[in-house]
Amino acid sequence: MTSSSENPDPVKAKCPPVLVDDVYLNGPTLDVNGAEDFIRESMRIITEDAVKKATDVREKVCEWHSPEDLKELLDLQLTDEGESDTRILERCRDAIRYSVKTTHPRFFNQLYAGMEPYSMVASFIIEALKPSLYTYEVSPVFTLVEDAVLRKMREVIGWKEGGDGIFNAGGSLSNMYAVNLARYHHCPDVKELGLSAVPRLVLFTSQECHYSISKAAAFLGIGTKNVYVVPSDNRGKMIPTALEELIQTAKSEGAVPFMVNATAGTTVLGAFDPIEEIADICEKHNLWLHVDACWGGAALMSAKHKHLLKGVHRANSVAWNPHKMLMACLQCCAFLVRDKTGLLQRCYSARASYLFQQDKFYDVSYDTGDKSVQCSRKPDAFKFWLMWKALGSKELEQRVDRAFAMAKYLAQEVKKREGFRLLMEPEYANVCFWYIPPSLRDLPDSTELWEKIHKVAPVVKERMMKKGSMMVGYQPHGDKANFFRMIIISPQVSRQDMDFVLDEIDRLGRDL
Amino acid sequence: MTSSSENPDPVKAKCPPVLVDDVYLNGPTLDVNGAEDFIRESMRIITEDAVKKATDVREKVCEWHSPEDLKELLDLQLTDEGESDTRILERCRDAIRYSVKTTHPRFFNQLYAGMEPYSMVASFIIEALKPSLYTYEVSPVFTLVEDAVLRKMREVIGWKEGGDGIFNAGGSLSNMYAVNLARYHHCPDVKELGLSAVPRLVLFTSQECHYSISKAAAFLGIGTKNVYVVPSDNRGKMIPTALEELIQTAKSEGAVPFMVNATAGTTVLGAFDPIEEIADICEKHNLWLHVDACWGGAALMSAKHKHLLKGVHRANSVAWNPHKMLMACLQCCAFLVRDKTGLLQRCYSARASYLFQQDKFYDVSYDTGDKSVQCSRKPDAFKFWLMWKALGSKELEQRVDRAFAMAKYLAQEVKKREGFRLLMEPEYANVCFWYIPPSLRDLPDSTELWEKIHKVAPVVKERMMKKGSMMVGYQPHGDKANFFRMIIISPQVSRQDMDFVLDEIDRLGRDL
Repeated sequence: MTSSSENPDPVKAKCPPVLVDDVYLNGPTLDVNGAEDFIRESMRIITEDAVKKATDVREKVCEWHSPEDLKELLDLQLTDEGESDTRILERCRDAIRYSVKTTHPRFFNQLYAGMEPYSMVASFIIEALKPSLYTYEVSPVFTLVEDAVLRKMREVIGWKEGGDGIFNAGGSLSNMYAVNLARYHHCPDVKELGLSAVPRLVLFTSQECHYSISKAAAFLGIGTKNVYVVPSDNRGKMIPTALEELIQTAKSEGAVPFMVNATAGTTVLGAFDPIEEIADICEKHNLWLHVDACWGGAALMSAKHKHLLKGVHRANSVAWNPHKMLMACLQCCAFLVRDKTGLLQRCYSARASYLFQQDKFYDVSYDTGDKSVQCSRKPDAFKFWLMWKALGSKELEQRVDRAFAMAKYLAQEVKKREGFRLLMEPEYANVCFWYIPPSLRDLPDSTELWEKIHKVAPVVKERMMKKGSMMVGYQPHGDKANFFRMIIISPQVSRQDMDFVLDEIDRLGRDL
Repeated sequence: MTSSSENPDPVKAKCPPVLVDDVYLNGPTLDVNGAEDFIRESMRIITEDAVKKATDVREKVCEWHSPEDLKELLDLQLTDEGESDTRILERCRDAIRYSVKTTHPRFFNQLYAGMEPYSMVASFIIEALKPSLYTYEVSPVFTLVEDAVLRKMREVIGWKEGGDGIFNAGGSLSNMYAVNLARYHHCPDVKELGLSAVPRLVLFTSQECHYSISKAAAFLGIGTKNVYVVPSDNRGKMIPTALEELIQTAKSEGAVPFMVNATAGTTVLGAFDPIEEIADICEKHNLWLHVDACWGGAALMSAKHKHLLKGVHRANSVAWNPHKMLMACLQCCAFLVRDKTGLLQRCYSARASYLFQQDKFYDVSYDTGDKSVQCSRKPDAFKFWLMWKALGSKELEQRVDRAFAMAKYLAQEVKKREGFRLLMEPEYANVCFWYIPPSLRDLPDSTELWEKIHKVAPVVKERMMKKGSMMVGYQPHGDKANFFRMIIISPQVSRQDMDFVLDEIDRLGRDL
């Protein structure tokens, strides 16, 4: 389809043929118009299989195959000869068929879920246009869109005037930006001289924080042992007095504390660290306060629930992923900064002269690429902007409120049902519980019992995946045996789905 | 369109209403089927405007507006109330209209260009399915596809058996992976203890390398001053004897050299460092050799041109972006590792227990997420895999050969024409040249003349953008005054487009 030696322009056709190094250079050899049928047919398949069927509650969430079997089914080998469009369309169908349907109403396995049509369309536009954010001249629309979204998100946080930020390829990267920026703020010389020239730097985070903080410490050369882990209470919230003590410990060791990471919405329990109290301690010790609100930031959209992040406006930086609770397409991750002095730019800039020329004909302050550790960067903010335009803040708020209510409903049901045991009342959209099969229900509470309960979730998980009926995550956590973690996000989900989840776990596990 | 209180399932409708915290939880409030018309219409707009019109040579590459004007045109404000689907579709049209058409045959501004229909369709599938690569259970298809593509790319590099790798959100990130991996290989303790516990580490790269190496040194805590910059020759290639000397210098200072970055295809000049000789030096001094082949890696697909990377199989790691010359959709960036002992996993792992449970029912060695600094990660390899399946290695090779030939043709034309001056013979697909308007052609070669020539390219660039006829980059470089850098990639381009570029520069600049 795409090979063509025809020249669509009659004027050009008159030119003499040109041969260089045995290659004819007259006329394009790829004609996008010739691909129209293929594109149209593939879009039909995507709409039918990857959108409609994938989100249909009557369909399977996944069609399980072992890696070995799936390799056979997919025929992955790359060879010298190409394949026909018909064959490629079959491959598209297969890729969709054997993929997990993360947009299915019964997918509860991660901190993202569901299908947001406006955001999906924004994603398609991005993929077709192939924009890259670094200079205004190459991405005028998306540069301005990113600026507008960051501005609005800062407003929601409570930073009324100014500030800075950037969208990143993932919340882990946003947390890394925070650690690096805090370090630069503490000691700008590190950028040039490196860490071997300064005393040992230490940062603080809770035991419940996301693992990206530890990865950041390793990647940024700080070292995982210089992440001082603050104990959390039994709700999963950082204990401020323990933070204060650890800061003193670090200082007494001759180390240099430079930042605290507070988590708003922890990964497993959905807990919110007490930001206000942590901010007091940061101010007292002159430490950068970063709030990892990748998961919990959505609560800021709700008048009813934003108190969970009380004090967040006192943070120096915030990471917030609209691709989680707010359902923007993957990935959509904002890193927001309170500073108004250009700290982000100074920290990250490398002033590449081939990209950031200073003699351009427009205001080069719109060239935002030198705030990034990336060069090419996708305009992810557009995926959030378009859906926000369509839904308005009000509908986003309603969705958040509904997810909270749905989590509360599920927790109530768990408490009502025999054989289910709630880990704790949910504070957010994580509902954690054990399933205890009939054979274990009458056993005395003991280490042996919990060892047996520990083995239940993996088997139920295996069975739900092989059946394809739903996907719910499980994990051990601290001294707790394997438990299920239900995540509630999508407005495609109703309370009937909550009931279904509990019924299905019971169906799948009652013989254990 | 997406708000619905109706319940599509008659069985569910019989359930009693449930109200929690003032929210009705019966039935979904988002019905993807209800969005079908919107999705269909948006896909029509994308096909017409973002695919067909965007790639039509008779259309403009861009419709220039200043940031201030464009803000007005786009109406970026985010508000409480949502907008109608009709209005959102208009916004889609506008976003496309005012965006730069990087897939247009006359877009030569970056190291990527053109429209690859197969890869675009793969991107759409990814966006619709919302997969994330960390565990096999959530992304079975894309996990295996990534493995297959990495395997094949390693084979092309010449690593016949085994090895490792990962796709990243950008070549800059791949280079960072390399620096971190080299550091970990040199001194595994750094992961836990950080750089303040070890002597000053130093890495080497040429003056022509991409700025991401410097950004990596800053980000990873090594410090930009510990990037020792090796002089390049007048072709832009690293001088091996100068590298050897700098290594000795570093050692004599008591610093610890740990890696060398060689560039295969530099950003501005398209130069290839002499890998074979650099590999000899690395072996002698026991240094990690990373090859940044983000841009030049494509030459490996060509029997005729792969000699440019001779010795690449001796590298410890290679960064290679199929989204550049090979036209996979943005972003598609492989980081490839020769090591077969699991170094990548050991270097990056954090063993998050909520994601990488060891009691799963399948072989967890397929859970590749702990090799990454990211948590959510997009399955970019699929965009390359599908087009490779469609085209076969042979057509990829032909495209690469054609880009080389086209660059050669353009260089010949530049030399033929009055008022154009070639910077140097191209070795790859970068063609660098000055345009000298008639008024300057008879002036004697002097600093004053070059100061005048320096001001020509920015004006021509402004004019081409305001006209929308094409986009070609320019930059100063070392002691060289501003010159144009043409990048040739896409098979949508013919030698007539090369002629057009030179004609157009002359038209736009002859009065200067």
